[in-house]
Amino acid sequence: MRTANGKLLAVLDAFGRDRPVLTLSELARAVGVPLSTAHRLVAELTAWGGLERDADGGYRVGLRLWELGALAPRGLGLREVALPFMEDLYEVTHENVQLAVRDGVEVVFVERFAARGAVTVLTRVGGRFALPPTGVGLVLLAHAPVEVQEEVLGAPLQRHTRHTVVDPARLRRVLAEVRRAGHAVSDRQVTDDAVSVAAPVWERGQVVAALSIVVRGESAAVVRPFVPGVMAAARGISRSLPG
Amino acid sequence: MRTANGKLLAVLDAFGRDRPVLTLSELARAVGVPLSTAHRLVAELTAWGGLERDADGGYRVGLRLWELGALAPRGLGLREVALPFMEDLYEVTHENVQLAVRDGVEVVFVERFAARGAVTVLTRVGGRFALPPTGVGLVLLAHAPVEVQEEVLGAPLQRHTRHTVVDPARLRRVLAEVRRAGHAVSDRQVTDDAVSVAAPVWERGQVVAALSIVVRGESAAVVRPFVPGVMAAARGISRSLPG
Repeated sequence: MRTANGKLLAVLDAFGRDRPVLTLSELARAVGVPLSTAHRLVAELTAWGGLERDADGGYRVGLRLWELGALAPRGLGLREVALPFMEDLYEVTHENVQLAVRDGVEVVFVERFAARGAVTVLTRVGGRFALPPTGVGLVLLAHAPVEVQEEVLGAPLQRHTRHTVVDPARLRRVLAEVRRAGHAVSDRQVTDDAVSVAAPVWERGQVVAALSIVVRGESAAVVRPFVPGVMAAARGISRSLPG
Repeated sequence: MRTANGKLLAVLDAFGRDRPVLTLSELARAVGVPLSTAHRLVAELTAWGGLERDADGGYRVGLRLWELGALAPRGLGLREVALPFMEDLYEVTHENVQLAVRDGVEVVFVERFAARGAVTVLTRVGGRFALPPTGVGLVLLAHAPVEVQEEVLGAPLQRHTRHTVVDPARLRRVLAEVRRAGHAVSDRQVTDDAVSVAAPVWERGQVVAALSIVVRGESAAVVRPFVPGVMAAARGISRSLPG
């Protein structure tokens, strides 16, 4: 049986990118409680500001949660330090610039600048993606604890395009090369027309984030001119982080 | 007496811009519970991902809350729609560009682009400020429900500089002019060297946000060249909002 607190958190967990608006009965079903209990939990969260009711009676995540989330050092805190470097990179390239952190075996995108006309990328701020196929994910995986690497390499690697690396032995060699070179290249591993180059952001001897540029292209060569810029910007962010 | 859920939310409320890291005993004191209760609440929130423990044993807001906050339509949702328009405005002006919403009688800043070398502004993303002295606040107050306006006009208006409007009758005339003109100008009402111009963002016949540019200057005239750009960008955002 779940505690009262567990139920409250389960109400929040019911929301997601693909279900941003939920009715009271959808929430009751998701949490597995009677409508009356759901009503009480939702009333508590709404009074606090964590949920907001829209004109059609649906519930959405409220401004109070956004404010609290803005305090997360791995979210907006990191982003605030990174933003000037990302802006500079964006202004000189007008390509997609992305900042991501690792959560378990997934990438979470913390910031993204997408130029109109730049190649379409699948990511959204606050969105998640698998580690292996993305440039930022390769950097984060290459510097992750060995248990995380083994978990990823031990599970079947999902194919997104015909270029996706799905052989664990080959991925292991790629990761070693990422550590050696100080950057990662993902050549059309997520979509058929996008190549990315990513570099690590360091804090106190740990890789805490990865910065990347994603450009339109059909070979790893298209990102070569961007490698120094991405690496320099990632170093700039590392130097600016507290501690 | 507070409910279990009330205590859990009080743990989250203990965090703020000025107290991003808290120890267990600081949390126990803030919530008003014994250390053992605080320990259980913090363990529950940490397991869920809402708090993270740092290397020094302090607790911070975790990535899970940032992810949930990213779903708030008035936070990141609004920001995603507004971002391309803000980027355009920033690129052509290289001044501070800000996006804000109203929460009660305060402004909450949802996004901010600050150019290096641009005038210093006091705002931060996720930060709050009083409505009357800021450009965005004047727009949001001018279009707020009459109860909100009466609450603000009925309380003493805080002086920030010698230019801050503190006479309620004068503020009332300013708000009428903001509604008539479709934009607001705040001339050094927050700091002695900054002037801002703000315009409303509409959704379904309601003002849901305000967009502004803040520039260095010593008279309202300095923002005149920016008025059409800010108004056009705010209309662009309004047109792009769903519904």
